[in-house]
Amino acid sequence: MTQPTRPDYPIADLMLKRTSPRAFSPEPMAPAALRQCLEALRWAPSCFNAQPWRLLVAPRQDEAAFAALTGCLVEGNRIWAAQASVIGVALAVSHFEHNGKPNAWAQHDVGLGLAQLNLQAVALGYATHLMGGFDKNAVRALANVPEGAEPLVAFVIGKEADPSVLPESLRDKECAPRTRKAQADWVFSTHYGTPLNLG
Amino acid sequence: MTQPTRPDYPIADLMLKRTSPRAFSPEPMAPAALRQCLEALRWAPSCFNAQPWRLLVAPRQDEAAFAALTGCLVEGNRIWAAQASVIGVALAVSHFEHNGKPNAWAQHDVGLGLAQLNLQAVALGYATHLMGGFDKNAVRALANVPEGAEPLVAFVIGKEADPSVLPESLRDKECAPRTRKAQADWVFSTHYGTPLNLG
Repeated sequence: MTQPTRPDYPIADLMLKRTSPRAFSPEPMAPAALRQCLEALRWAPSCFNAQPWRLLVAPRQDEAAFAALTGCLVEGNRIWAAQASVIGVALAVSHFEHNGKPNAWAQHDVGLGLAQLNLQAVALGYATHLMGGFDKNAVRALANVPEGAEPLVAFVIGKEADPSVLPESLRDKECAPRTRKAQADWVFSTHYGTPLNLG
Repeated sequence: MTQPTRPDYPIADLMLKRTSPRAFSPEPMAPAALRQCLEALRWAPSCFNAQPWRLLVAPRQDEAAFAALTGCLVEGNRIWAAQASVIGVALAVSHFEHNGKPNAWAQHDVGLGLAQLNLQAVALGYATHLMGGFDKNAVRALANVPEGAEPLVAFVIGKEADPSVLPESLRDKECAPRTRKAQADWVFSTHYGTPLNLG
């Protein structure tokens, strides 16, 4: 599974530059820049244009809110995420508003939207890091989340810092090469497991 | 919910230009360009770097494979999607390979990856359209999909064409303005339902 850090085929700069760092410099993010990141998410496509994403967001300028949301992270994330500029939790609305039926693409669409947020952050000189490690029940209680909205993923946006700001235990991880499966391991023909052959 | 077509805040060109058209010009896509779109997906982040995405892909040059996959779409999608250059189905691997536990972010991560595929296609002058309307069981049977991999979303990549190529019933839809909820409707403070106030 180990692959070189560089892509095998050229990809757009925003995606090439995107990483998920842990080393952040604790500075505020300008509100206009944060709005741009949210706007990028807003224009993502979604099934029936249902836009099943909901976000809880706290900029570090709002100390109480920022502390409350970072307090919902598992400790292993909190130690570095608390240095970021913005913390958020993305929730998925599990049913369609137009007919009340389950939305089987709600989680998919939240991920799709967050990818656009990630890339807009990169475009503005920021980095993001998405996290599964947080306490969903704590988020539910803090934000009074109603039934039908499911806390799915936490994220931070911030200015990447030198890995030396991290505790030693995280520093090596931060500097490790990025790895990905080869395309042949997951891009198949119309037979699952048979690599796509484009000649 | 009706909003003007233009974003309220500036977003990156790739996202501004991204749409989900139905009008496609039936021409082949160069294999190198398709590989670039797949590569963009490949470099998406995922929970524990599990890369839970698997893709079945058929370029229109491979007539049998292309017909087999388009045959899995619901008719309302097939009538326009069959004019695209590439058709695919994205599947989510439901359990982590490293410990066998359920991956609660598998669908989320597939969506996140497809967003990168979408935007790389735009960067190369192509458009994509994701679809929930397809027969999962037909895909399972066609591709011999194993347990643990869930067909989640179908997609096409192609060159956008003039809406006049569409049947009349689809033409108005193609030209309708894009709409999105306002940020205040889904970007909340640490209290669900209360719009985030950035001063």
